[in-house]
Amino acid sequence: MKIAIDAMGGDHAPKEPVLGALQALKHITSEIVLIGDETKIKEVLKDQTYDQSRISIVHTTEVIENEDKPVKAIKAKKDSSMVVGFKLLKEKQIDAFLSAGNTGALLAGGLLKVGRIKGIDRPALCSVYPTSKGISVLIDAGANSDCKPRNLYEFGVMGSIYANKVLGIENPRVGLANIGVEEGKGSSLVVEAYPLLKDSELNFIGNAEVRDVPDGVCDVIVCDGFTGNVILKVSEGVAKSFSGMLKAEIMKSKLMSVASLLLKPAFGALKKTMDYAEYGGAPFLGVDGLLVKAHGSSNAKAFMNAIKYAQKCIDEDIVMSIKAEVAKNISADVESVSQQEGE
Amino acid sequence: MKIAIDAMGGDHAPKEPVLGALQALKHITSEIVLIGDETKIKEVLKDQTYDQSRISIVHTTEVIENEDKPVKAIKAKKDSSMVVGFKLLKEKQIDAFLSAGNTGALLAGGLLKVGRIKGIDRPALCSVYPTSKGISVLIDAGANSDCKPRNLYEFGVMGSIYANKVLGIENPRVGLANIGVEEGKGSSLVVEAYPLLKDSELNFIGNAEVRDVPDGVCDVIVCDGFTGNVILKVSEGVAKSFSGMLKAEIMKSKLMSVASLLLKPAFGALKKTMDYAEYGGAPFLGVDGLLVKAHGSSNAKAFMNAIKYAQKCIDEDIVMSIKAEVAKNISADVESVSQQEGE
Repeated sequence: MKIAIDAMGGDHAPKEPVLGALQALKHITSEIVLIGDETKIKEVLKDQTYDQSRISIVHTTEVIENEDKPVKAIKAKKDSSMVVGFKLLKEKQIDAFLSAGNTGALLAGGLLKVGRIKGIDRPALCSVYPTSKGISVLIDAGANSDCKPRNLYEFGVMGSIYANKVLGIENPRVGLANIGVEEGKGSSLVVEAYPLLKDSELNFIGNAEVRDVPDGVCDVIVCDGFTGNVILKVSEGVAKSFSGMLKAEIMKSKLMSVASLLLKPAFGALKKTMDYAEYGGAPFLGVDGLLVKAHGSSNAKAFMNAIKYAQKCIDEDIVMSIKAEVAKNISADVESVSQQEGE
Repeated sequence: MKIAIDAMGGDHAPKEPVLGALQALKHITSEIVLIGDETKIKEVLKDQTYDQSRISIVHTTEVIENEDKPVKAIKAKKDSSMVVGFKLLKEKQIDAFLSAGNTGALLAGGLLKVGRIKGIDRPALCSVYPTSKGISVLIDAGANSDCKPRNLYEFGVMGSIYANKVLGIENPRVGLANIGVEEGKGSSLVVEAYPLLKDSELNFIGNAEVRDVPDGVCDVIVCDGFTGNVILKVSEGVAKSFSGMLKAEIMKSKLMSVASLLLKPAFGALKKTMDYAEYGGAPFLGVDGLLVKAHGSSNAKAFMNAIKYAQKCIDEDIVMSIKAEVAKNISADVESVSQQEGE
C-alpha cells in the first residue's frame, strides 16, 4: 500500500510534511510517496535517517499556492504536486493522497480529477471534533456551503462509517446539528433533512442542540458545510479567546501568576485535547479514493497523525465501505426521495 | 415612561422578574408595569420595600407555557400576560415590554400583534456577544432561520443603530459572519448579502471570519438567525465544556486543587464577562415598539440589567431611530435592489 503526501502543501512545506512522513513510517505499514520538487525534498531528507526502501519521490515542477483560484489552478498547473497526486489516486497507483495545500483546490480536484462515488451527490469533509467526553466527527466541515436535505443524509451515512471504522465508536450516535432539540426546529434545510435521517438505518438521535455539541451529545455531528465550518471555527476562537482572557486576568496579580505555574499540567492537558495536530487531517469522504485534507499550518506531528489516520482508513477500506453502503441504502432511499419530490 | 414586565415569563416566574423589576427601579426613570397574576405578584411584593407609586400591576389570568405552540397560544390565550403585553405595546400604553417567556410566542406576537416597522422585511433578535475586547452585538440571534440577502442588510442597519446608541460604540464596525474573509466566500446567502452591505452607508468591514468573532473582530456581527443562534450557543457550550474540562484536570491533583483556589478572582472575572445576566435581554428590532426577549433562565439580576438596557433604548428612542434610518435608506436601497431583481 502507498500513501502519497503533497510535499509542497501547507505553510511549512516541504520541511514539515517530509519530516512528518518520516515520523509516520514507524507507525504505519504503507510505503510513502513524496510528491513535489525533488531537490527541495532531498534537502530535507539528507540529514535524516530512515528506511529508504519505503520512501519514494515523484518529482513535480509546479505548486498550487493558497492565493490561486482553485478550479483555474487545477486546470493550468498540470505538473503541480496536487494535480499529480489526484492523477495517481485516480489511477489507483496510490491508496491515499494527503495535502495541506489550498483547500478549495483540493476539494475541486477531488470532484473534477478523482471523481465522486456513484450515488453520492456531494462529498464532504469529515473532521474530528474534540469534546469533553472524547472525540466526535463533524461532517460537513466546510466543503459544501449550500446543501440539500439529501446531502445531509449522505453525510450522516459517511460520518457514521468513519466514526465506527476509524475511531472505533460502536453504533455511533448521529445527531443533526440544530438550534433546538424538537423536530421542526431550525432552518428549512434541517427540517427537511430530519425525516430522511429518522427513516434511515442510522442510529439517529434526532436534533443535536449545538450548545451541547462541545459536551459530546452525539458521535457524528451532521450539518451543511457552512454551519460545520462555523461550529469548528467558533469553537476554536472561543477556546483561544477564553485562554487569552484567563491569562490576562491571571497576570493582573503576582500571586495568581505564581499559582498558575502550579496549574501548568492541567492547562497542558486541556491544550492537548484541543490541539488539531493530535487528530491530523479531514478525509474528503464520498470521493472515489482516499483524499485527506490536512490543516494548512500543520507541523510534522500533525502530518504524522494525519498519515496514521490515513493508514487506518486504508486498513478499514473506508472508500469501499461507503460504496457498499451506498449500494445497499442510498440508491433505494434516493429512489424513494426522488419519487416523493416528483423528480 | 412605562416599562412593562411579563411577570409570568421565565423559569423562575413570578419571583425573579418581580424582584428584578424592583431592583431596576433604582437605576431607571420609567415606571414599571407588572403583567400577570395579581395574587402571585403581590405574594412576591409583600415582603419588599419599594416606591409603590412607580409600580403597577395589570392582572391577567392565563400564561403561555414554554411547551405551547407559539401562534396557536397567542390566538387562544388572549388574557395571557404576554398577549396583554403585546396589546399595551401596540396601543402605546407602555414604552417597552420585556418577557423571558416562550421565545417563539414572543417572536410571533411581535410580528402578528405589535407589527413590523414599515420597510423592514424581517425583524431580528439583537443579542449582546461578549468578546475578549469588550462587547459586540450579534443580529439575528435566532428569529429568522431562513433569510434573504436583503434581510441581512437590514440586520446590519438595525444592529449598527443599537451598537451606537445603546452600547455607545462610535461608528460601529459591521461584519458579515462568514467562514473566510475574501469576498465570494461562503453560502450563496452571504455571497449575495455582501454587496448590499458594501454599497450601504454602514461602516462595513467585509466578512468577519467567525474564528475571530470571539476576539472582537467587529462590533456588529451580521448573520441569519440560524447561524447567529449557532454562534451564540456554540460559544456558550465551548466556554462551559472548557471550564468543566479544566476543572476536571485540576481536581486530578491535590496541589493543583489548592493552587486553583488562589486563581478564584481570575476565574470569577472571566465568568462575569461570559455571564449573559450582565447584559440582560435581546431586543426584537424591527418591530414597531420596544419588545425585549430576556433569557428563559433569567434571575433577578438578569431582569434588572435587561430593564436597564430597555430604559436606555427608550432614552435613545431606538424604534424611532430605526424608522428614520429606514425612511432615509432602506426604501431607496430596496427600490434599487428590487429593480435589479426585476421584481
